[in-house]
Amino acid sequence: MWSKNQLTEQLGLQYPIIQGPMSGASSAQLVAAVCQSGCLGSLGAAQLSPDKIRQEINMIRSLTDKPFAVNLFVPTNAPFPNSEAISAMNKLLNSFRNRLGISESPSLTANTLKFEDQLQVIIEEKVPIFSFTFGILEPEIIRKIKKHSIIVIGTATTVREAHNLENAGVDIIVASGSESGGHRGSAADTPITGSLIGTLALVPQIVDQVKLPVIAAGGIMDGRGIVAAIALGASGVQMGTAFLTCTESAISPAYKQSLLAAKDETTAITCSYTGRWARGIYNEFMQKMAQHQTAVLPYPYQRFLTQDIVNAAKQQNNKDLMMMWAGQATALCRSLAVQDFIATLIKETDDTLSQLQV
Amino acid sequence: MWSKNQLTEQLGLQYPIIQGPMSGASSAQLVAAVCQSGCLGSLGAAQLSPDKIRQEINMIRSLTDKPFAVNLFVPTNAPFPNSEAISAMNKLLNSFRNRLGISESPSLTANTLKFEDQLQVIIEEKVPIFSFTFGILEPEIIRKIKKHSIIVIGTATTVREAHNLENAGVDIIVASGSESGGHRGSAADTPITGSLIGTLALVPQIVDQVKLPVIAAGGIMDGRGIVAAIALGASGVQMGTAFLTCTESAISPAYKQSLLAAKDETTAITCSYTGRWARGIYNEFMQKMAQHQTAVLPYPYQRFLTQDIVNAAKQQNNKDLMMMWAGQATALCRSLAVQDFIATLIKETDDTLSQLQV
Repeated sequence: MWSKNQLTEQLGLQYPIIQGPMSGASSAQLVAAVCQSGCLGSLGAAQLSPDKIRQEINMIRSLTDKPFAVNLFVPTNAPFPNSEAISAMNKLLNSFRNRLGISESPSLTANTLKFEDQLQVIIEEKVPIFSFTFGILEPEIIRKIKKHSIIVIGTATTVREAHNLENAGVDIIVASGSESGGHRGSAADTPITGSLIGTLALVPQIVDQVKLPVIAAGGIMDGRGIVAAIALGASGVQMGTAFLTCTESAISPAYKQSLLAAKDETTAITCSYTGRWARGIYNEFMQKMAQHQTAVLPYPYQRFLTQDIVNAAKQQNNKDLMMMWAGQATALCRSLAVQDFIATLIKETDDTLSQLQV
Repeated sequence: MWSKNQLTEQLGLQYPIIQGPMSGASSAQLVAAVCQSGCLGSLGAAQLSPDKIRQEINMIRSLTDKPFAVNLFVPTNAPFPNSEAISAMNKLLNSFRNRLGISESPSLTANTLKFEDQLQVIIEEKVPIFSFTFGILEPEIIRKIKKHSIIVIGTATTVREAHNLENAGVDIIVASGSESGGHRGSAADTPITGSLIGTLALVPQIVDQVKLPVIAAGGIMDGRGIVAAIALGASGVQMGTAFLTCTESAISPAYKQSLLAAKDETTAITCSYTGRWARGIYNEFMQKMAQHQTAVLPYPYQRFLTQDIVNAAKQQNNKDLMMMWAGQATALCRSLAVQDFIATLIKETDDTLSQLQV
């Protein structure tokens, strides 16, 4: 099971386990601890300024000399919303602002964070591995990144997206099932149709259709999930939620507490926090906003407008309004230091495999 | 992997593979062929009259002396809809009826099919295994069934439902993930929240929380899925969609053709055909009716009212309107005789296991 494969060779890993990138959670400390344990840590840099990305990369490098990944979101280039749409959304959000004691109807700021500037840092810093989510980068951009000997990982939630990624020239594909926490990898999700395909169904279909190594993601929390993913044909696994409750994770204590108390029915998908569909712990904010889906601004503007609410809720430990991304197997979260957690995963994987051989 | 476990001992099987019950597809021929191959065939009897159930059971027994299962839906006892609700739904359905050339606004018939009468046949016929879906039977009913040495299998889509089934006294639990085709096992599903939990996330959480043997269902189509399910802690697997395209399956050629042509993004869940949420191949009927969810009558009345459309669409091979239940891994369907299909599954499982040991 742990013999070298194309994926571990390519990424320079001891174990084919990737810590999924998570904005706000994947601190340099978390990323480096994962890398030091023989796995791949990923910095979720989509919402960081170029300067901050460089700073985090330097921090990671001061903590480990192992390869690591940095993740960005493919830019959506949504137009700035018109003032009626902004007012309408602010009107809906003001009731939450009142409860949190923060000022009503803040003005919406322009999107000054340019993907090109973020990517430039990744290239200049010669980051070993670059991963992206939210659709597909242009083939020429992927070629440009690869020219700097940076390995490129794309994220697919359907076979079609996996095909498109392969054709665009990525090196490795993450097959992200509907169990995944946080933002969906795809642009096209809706709650009813689209690409909310379970990991167990998605992985073998993608493996059969592309030649590239496939990393399974979504609902994988322990050695059982790792063996299942490899049995389905994946070359490795990406685990996000499972790392959120590790000691090195940068999330708030209240968020960690909610994850450790979660049950299987705890999560739902919402677009109300950011304008993109994402899975998190279902709370009052998600519930109340669910009936106003058509009023939601496009990403990143919805995120800009809810930022004050998200920040205040976090500061006030208000779980009814806090943004708490989490996957469908959150109930299996454990509170361990990264090194111990990964050692546990390896042992569990070996144990699961032994049991299968009976 | 194929050594006896509690599940195979209890059910008298050579392999821990269950063919899921499917109304209209699981003919006596299909069920018996599965049993003859060392697995468990299940008759989907929810929509059959007591006489028809007895007839099918006799037919199965004429074809095999192996144990088999019969499945019923837990009764929902929804009140007969009021005439305004019926008219409103008929008005929506009439456009489809016009296209199919059938008469408008048929009158809604009362529900004369009594669960108690169906169950009585199962008890009288001493069916070896009884399974049920759509919630939980009263403990005294389960006790009554078990008194006749009938093994009882319940279906759970969440940990809570699995707990409730265990407390109600079932012998075995099917953990049915969101990938599953056909009717969801649970009553509480909605497209946004609730129990649409992926198989890979659901199975280990249920296994950890109940003492009973767990059968994994949802998205399992081949040996890779079987090994994955067993790695997740399941004692066996239930496969529905994978058997729909077998030679012995009773579905129409057009439906079979659609399954064999399906892709991963092909399915969605809908309540428009029957009043209960179910996953099938996404078509025009599902798309057009999606905006009228609040007008849908409760099960089984919505099913009664759409029955003429479903029947006519089937007769006319109209895939835009046909009801074609299918899971999220339908693209992996194969067209084989049951005996060959099961032999293939066993070989694939052994191969997958060997590859894991490298």
